[in-house]
Amino acid sequence: MASHNGKLWGGRFVGAVDPIMEKFNASIAYDRHLWEVDVQGSKAYSRGLEKAGLLTKAEMDQILHGLDKVAEEWAQGTFKLSPNDEDIHTANERRLKELIGETAGKLHTGRSRNDQVVTDLRLWMRQTCSTLSGLLWELIRTMVDRAEAERDVLFPGYTHLQRAQPIRWSHWILSHAVALTRDSERLLEVRKRINVLPLGSGAIAGNPLGVDRELLQAELNFGAITLNSMDATSERDFVAEFLFWASLCMTHLSRMAEDLILYCTKEFSFVQLSDAYSTGSSLMPQKKNPDSLELIRSKAGRVFGRCAGLLMTLKGLPSTYNKDLQEDKEAVFEVSDTMSAVLQVATGVISTLQIHRENMGQALSPDMLATDLAYYLVRKGMPFRQAHEASGKAVFMAETKGVALNQLSLQELQTISPLFSGDVSCVWDYGHSVEQYGALGGTACSSVDWQIRQVRALLQAQQA
Amino acid sequence: MASHNGKLWGGRFVGAVDPIMEKFNASIAYDRHLWEVDVQGSKAYSRGLEKAGLLTKAEMDQILHGLDKVAEEWAQGTFKLSPNDEDIHTANERRLKELIGETAGKLHTGRSRNDQVVTDLRLWMRQTCSTLSGLLWELIRTMVDRAEAERDVLFPGYTHLQRAQPIRWSHWILSHAVALTRDSERLLEVRKRINVLPLGSGAIAGNPLGVDRELLQAELNFGAITLNSMDATSERDFVAEFLFWASLCMTHLSRMAEDLILYCTKEFSFVQLSDAYSTGSSLMPQKKNPDSLELIRSKAGRVFGRCAGLLMTLKGLPSTYNKDLQEDKEAVFEVSDTMSAVLQVATGVISTLQIHRENMGQALSPDMLATDLAYYLVRKGMPFRQAHEASGKAVFMAETKGVALNQLSLQELQTISPLFSGDVSCVWDYGHSVEQYGALGGTACSSVDWQIRQVRALLQAQQA
Amino acid sequence: MASHNGKLWGGRFVGAVDPIMEKFNASIAYDRHLWEVDVQGSKAYSRGLEKAGLLTKAEMDQILHGLDKVAEEWAQGTFKLSPNDEDIHTANERRLKELIGETAGKLHTGRSRNDQVVTDLRLWMRQTCSTLSGLLWELIRTMVDRAEAERDVLFPGYTHLQRAQPIRWSHWILSHAVALTRDSERLLEVRKRINVLPLGSGAIAGNPLGVDRELLQAELNFGAITLNSMDATSERDFVAEFLFWASLCMTHLSRMAEDLILYCTKEFSFVQLSDAYSTGSSLMPQKKNPDSLELIRSKAGRVFGRCAGLLMTLKGLPSTYNKDLQEDKEAVFEVSDTMSAVLQVATGVISTLQIHRENMGQALSPDMLATDLAYYLVRKGMPFRQAHEASGKAVFMAETKGVALNQLSLQELQTISPLFSGDVSCVWDYGHSVEQYGALGGTACSSVDWQIRQVRALLQAQQA
Amino acid sequence: MASHNGKLWGGRFVGAVDPIMEKFNASIAYDRHLWEVDVQGSKAYSRGLEKAGLLTKAEMDQILHGLDKVAEEWAQGTFKLSPNDEDIHTANERRLKELIGETAGKLHTGRSRNDQVVTDLRLWMRQTCSTLSGLLWELIRTMVDRAEAERDVLFPGYTHLQRAQPIRWSHWILSHAVALTRDSERLLEVRKRINVLPLGSGAIAGNPLGVDRELLQAELNFGAITLNSMDATSERDFVAEFLFWASLCMTHLSRMAEDLILYCTKEFSFVQLSDAYSTGSSLMPQKKNPDSLELIRSKAGRVFGRCAGLLMTLKGLPSTYNKDLQEDKEAVFEVSDTMSAVLQVATGVISTLQIHRENMGQALSPDMLATDLAYYLVRKGMPFRQAHEASGKAVFMAETKGVALNQLSLQELQTISPLFSGDVSCVWDYGHSVEQYGALGGTACSSVDWQIRQVRALLQAQQA
Repeated sequence: MASHNGKLWGGRFVGAVDPIMEKFNASIAYDRHLWEVDVQGSKAYSRGLEKAGLLTKAEMDQILHGLDKVAEEWAQGTFKLSPNDEDIHTANERRLKELIGETAGKLHTGRSRNDQVVTDLRLWMRQTCSTLSGLLWELIRTMVDRAEAERDVLFPGYTHLQRAQPIRWSHWILSHAVALTRDSERLLEVRKRINVLPLGSGAIAGNPLGVDRELLQAELNFGAITLNSMDATSERDFVAEFLFWASLCMTHLSRMAEDLILYCTKEFSFVQLSDAYSTGSSLMPQKKNPDSLELIRSKAGRVFGRCAGLLMTLKGLPSTYNKDLQEDKEAVFEVSDTMSAVLQVATGVISTLQIHRENMGQALSPDMLATDLAYYLVRKGMPFRQAHEASGKAVFMAETKGVALNQLSLQELQTISPLFSGDVSCVWDYGHSVEQYGALGGTACSSVDWQIRQVRALLQAQQA
Repeated sequence: MASHNGKLWGGRFVGAVDPIMEKFNASIAYDRHLWEVDVQGSKAYSRGLEKAGLLTKAEMDQILHGLDKVAEEWAQGTFKLSPNDEDIHTANERRLKELIGETAGKLHTGRSRNDQVVTDLRLWMRQTCSTLSGLLWELIRTMVDRAEAERDVLFPGYTHLQRAQPIRWSHWILSHAVALTRDSERLLEVRKRINVLPLGSGAIAGNPLGVDRELLQAELNFGAITLNSMDATSERDFVAEFLFWASLCMTHLSRMAEDLILYCTKEFSFVQLSDAYSTGSSLMPQKKNPDSLELIRSKAGRVFGRCAGLLMTLKGLPSTYNKDLQEDKEAVFEVSDTMSAVLQVATGVISTLQIHRENMGQALSPDMLATDLAYYLVRKGMPFRQAHEASGKAVFMAETKGVALNQLSLQELQTISPLFSGDVSCVWDYGHSVEQYGALGGTACSSVDWQIRQVRALLQAQQA
Repeated sequence: MASHNGKLWGGRFVGAVDPIMEKFNASIAYDRHLWEVDVQGSKAYSRGLEKAGLLTKAEMDQILHGLDKVAEEWAQGTFKLSPNDEDIHTANERRLKELIGETAGKLHTGRSRNDQVVTDLRLWMRQTCSTLSGLLWELIRTMVDRAEAERDVLFPGYTHLQRAQPIRWSHWILSHAVALTRDSERLLEVRKRINVLPLGSGAIAGNPLGVDRELLQAELNFGAITLNSMDATSERDFVAEFLFWASLCMTHLSRMAEDLILYCTKEFSFVQLSDAYSTGSSLMPQKKNPDSLELIRSKAGRVFGRCAGLLMTLKGLPSTYNKDLQEDKEAVFEVSDTMSAVLQVATGVISTLQIHRENMGQALSPDMLATDLAYYLVRKGMPFRQAHEASGKAVFMAETKGVALNQLSLQELQTISPLFSGDVSCVWDYGHSVEQYGALGGTACSSVDWQIRQVRALLQAQQA
Repeated sequence: MASHNGKLWGGRFVGAVDPIMEKFNASIAYDRHLWEVDVQGSKAYSRGLEKAGLLTKAEMDQILHGLDKVAEEWAQGTFKLSPNDEDIHTANERRLKELIGETAGKLHTGRSRNDQVVTDLRLWMRQTCSTLSGLLWELIRTMVDRAEAERDVLFPGYTHLQRAQPIRWSHWILSHAVALTRDSERLLEVRKRINVLPLGSGAIAGNPLGVDRELLQAELNFGAITLNSMDATSERDFVAEFLFWASLCMTHLSRMAEDLILYCTKEFSFVQLSDAYSTGSSLMPQKKNPDSLELIRSKAGRVFGRCAGLLMTLKGLPSTYNKDLQEDKEAVFEVSDTMSAVLQVATGVISTLQIHRENMGQALSPDMLATDLAYYLVRKGMPFRQAHEASGKAVFMAETKGVALNQLSLQELQTISPLFSGDVSCVWDYGHSVEQYGALGGTACSSVDWQIRQVRALLQAQQA
């Protein structure tokens, strides 16, 4: 029914080629980012072919030399795409052929775009993980340095955004730094699973020409070899894991950003952003907005969206390669770029932030010591539940009388419990309060120092 | 503490300006898409200012003329961005000032980027909705035309991917077309909520200069006016709705694609894609892969990811404008582009698809008429539950004997129920079977025709 | 290979029945919520069968009477499930048969669980939409009443959480109420698409027995009839739409909750939650936590998770009914319950919240009038961009001198611009400031009143 | 303004208590699952208090004994909840007090619900991870056993759902088993991060009473101690990681289910589900539906929805404990239950599945050897690109002549390339074809055996 090729059903005209389909199908617009690793993978593969006797030494050298030339053109910005270069693999092989002739046609022997593309992506992401690890470590190091330097600053710790207990400012910094160490640990695990060689899996059934995959692994410095060719060409766990890693890391940064946005408000006035990380208003001359922090907070959504999108794309796919998998690369590129910017901006924000020590101190109030008052009674032998209740009564008494909690007289306190005596006055010292929290992980100076040592040790271990 | 501006905490060096922050903050790379609507909005606003007495007629004319010039430069590709043009609004106003001088500084009177950007985005999306509506209608029309033309083709209907009952091929086409009519209806509703004027809301408190928002509405042809200036500048419901609209539409198209991918397999062999919508394999010469359909299926993930990302970005934001909202535009642009391509490719696929009538017919088998056999007994007076059981016994008997269901003799059937008589032979006709389903919405010819009429009427009503 | 039924592959033992599979497959644990609508649907269907001549009048009466009995048992809590009742449809039909005998076996004639379950779900959700609409209206009404009563209270409007301009407290309330009116509008649209009859679609091909679907529509009071039987039994758009409706509504409520959580902090101290909506701390006697608001904020995640989950389940499914669709009901039930609780709690919070007018007033500061200062100059003829700059200079001068913006002397101001004269003192009045914003949607009293009238009119229109 | 406690704003009546709020706030309905770990945690904590001198030995013994009694009541189903038991922690402590009197009030000394609940959850999840690991290993083991036993079965490997190359059925099984080994590896990593002690972090600032956290760690057998008390009480990374782990694992299972659903169709007919994992149709007597597989596929959506929901809830939260975090538990419980059922059902499906060897064999066709034909030429010295083209010509020639690819005569082949000679006939043997793929990870027998050994070694290593 020849007319089917025409416009029988009233649809848009379609000839042999639909330009919208061509553009829809092509990936060169973004997978050109892979030019370097594509060349790298092809060089290794040509060595594998030579060892397998499918290339002579001379042919291999010709190919290696040609590939170096291709890479050079990319590096120098002189590589010219042709209209038929639908992806980076086609482009590079096309150019290789122009440079060295028919021998180029031997390079793809036993290889498929299915194992080629996933090898390229793994090589690219392995490098990205290293870059992001470095940026993450720099952020953590900046935070830890700052925590060490400002250990003497106290301010309110909040739960439910209500003032809870006095804590060290360093304790707050470390609470976020510690969260980021888990991201750092996870990134190493993700990298380990990225760093596995799929090359030599062909399209689905494997490599039929005796290519030595252990040689390929060594050439490309992979940590392991994929176990099954069908899985190797179609699993994108390492992409999903990377996107989720980024999502969880962004969740941490969004929470830190949220805290700092609050601390920047007029109402809190604990910190002030450097001008480099704020912007003014087009309408209101007095405004200074924490745009950097808001952008960090917002990117948590974008990054997670990419993770959600990829998982939905993967769900229910038949096994082995399906074109749907082409969605992986743009997600990876966008998220890598975002993470790189966010981590550097966050480092800049933290390293240039000014703190208002005086405001921080003034925000501490005696009612935040109500728990300590209860502990005072506990130390005198009262069961905690009763002490909690007694302290609650004191809070209520102070509110009723319209005085601060520490302004209740000893007599007044003794109407609540006879255990109160003169030494209760020690409770009303914020410095004394925080120093009680000396158990590991607490806000006492010794514990903050311990945290700093622990995080530094982690950084060192991970960098090793 | 001056050293804070330096690198006190060991972080990356940051001077007065952090180039990564500048890039992170700038939106010009993508919001330049808004150049035309930005000019359009500014022209309307200058009329508003003139009416309010804040511009003289001459000043207004000067501004209008200057803005036309700006638009012309964009249209001709001669607009030159300067390094300080962080967004399209800044760029256009900067250029206006270069063109007409200080009067340009009056344009932003009482306006804020907060109401300006959301006005621009609404104008842009209103146009996009119209474009996408048109493409969606063309797809539906193509499907309905094809359904009408191929009404005589029967093939198996599946539930749980198991052969269920004979149906018309047109009934299958219409099942997907009908789903898309809901998308069309929803898109009109989304457009209605996009088509509301926020201009005149200022940064947060409204417009203090008596600008007549009804005049602005008329100038820009909006259907309504936002009710509250705080909400107007910070709500992105219309973006979320648009992204969800696209997600649900893509879910429909992913299901249609899934069906067609199956029907393209060797095993089903019901349809064949036009070459324009298939691609070959880099390794396997015999392959012809339904890449167009796989890409359509995969985009459901990407589009939904954008919807998920935006909602996460919005969740828990303080009210009014926060920089987080800047995430809206890239999502909208990407999803619009994707939808446009997907709808056109889907139309191309449907309009050029070949069907294999013979294979479709051969895939029908007598056991698919087991339900009809039960109805035969029901018509003879047997309660359905018993008839269902009797028909089940016949299926089992045929399986046991290794014959097709319609090859059981009358005697054999009568061992199951005495209600079977000679007229049971009518059951074994596929054409007869489908014609039973004459209730509205069924697969009988009359009902298929009714569906076609209904969908055409909907198209007409929505285009009106 | 008989041994396959055994444990050939080392897996867990599986006989004819796997109890875990049975539990995995059964839906009765949750779809029992549908008991009432299932009876309702069956009653309508039996009338359809009678009209089609498949039931006698006597049989129909017997069935109707039996179904009433079934409903009565459910209502009175005396319905006893049997172990084989895998879903509500099976349970109700099983019980009907026990009550009226073999005639019960006629009820399912031409019906399938595929059209039955989706009819039930639509009936249930239609009712739920009405309930949720009512709760949403009550919340909006409460907000509008409060906005009207407290129109005279001024406090800071924030953008980027920085103090921006003085606004009316009522303007803030209305900004959230207006967002909710869109949810109300959308819910009506969703309900319209829920309110469509699928019954009479059978399993896939339609109804073969001449059942009059328009009669069924009338009996069950549906607004329309599904167009295509394949689509009718397998589309879950109305579920996805409902879940997204809830997600977007929750996004609004999460933003309102976020604002209020901030306003409840010691630092803002603008509002105080009623005790009924706060809780204390198990450790800190002085704490009063805004748990109600935090829970509202958090539910935005849960509800959206259900929406994301359903869309992922739908993506890429083959058309028509697949068991995957069974995931729809738990999502709907959970989200309905959550929305009902959230809307009522939000209403309770808003109606019992105390505001601290004095704190609100004290939070206004002269620098928030910097924009008004610029407008002052604009009104004197200065182009806005220059006026903005001049006002910025005044802000800087005040900061440098360590005085409030309104404490700059006229002489000082005149060093910035000669346009300043004695009447500049009017600028420093907050009441005067807000009254400038008289354009529609602004924070002036007249505009706030206009908003109240508009929202009340919308409520009335939607309830009609 | 006393009337605020009433119904001033027209809302629903609210007295001192709002029953809907109480239900909204309470978690006992689901956190009662934690009864056992809550007792376990409290027992350890009482030992910590004794060591710190806050309990005498006698008091500790009294508490330990009382807690054992509480646990016994839960285990025997005799624990009675009281209306004020809003969560499991309150319930257990209330009951302890009833059993042992005032000493119970000492148990919570220095502890907060913030560190208590997260300790409980980690204990519970640690156990769940072990259970799920075991179920996952059993599934993998079943698959590997089956792969070993059916190594001789060949069938088509598909890419893009088009027949690609002959592979071993075992190769397909292993492709899914290998994916699951990554889930197993990841689960161990997640468990490692779950297995960290937060107890001793108090509400936010740490523990002020010198409780020895290393003692608590030893008592509860945790692998490490949380580093920072603010982070410890409010991070839910381990929950997010667990939910993502489940999501990715479900993605794998959804893909395996998708394959099997296709292989169960009449069109493929490669496998047949055991009756225990199929169900019939309420309407169509001949149907046997793969419900188990469809449910597995669908749960990927539900599980991911929970992951998405939790991340959205976490995004942008201020640091430390907020009530929003209460959303963690229901997600964990639901996903654990789902994973447990899915893994067991999948094991049952795989271990009882029948394969139709004959159909599998018949689905192999000579055109699937077109790649091998190209390799034949490669082995004769032709560059692959030319060989691919030559093989493509042969495919086209066969199609044109209407014969199978292996029915082209030698002469015909030689018109394409003179390199073809008599030994080309070896190409047309499927057994010979698969045996070429001997590189690691390929479908040759030796490589399949290698895969089996590798997976078994992994299982052993992980169980160690």
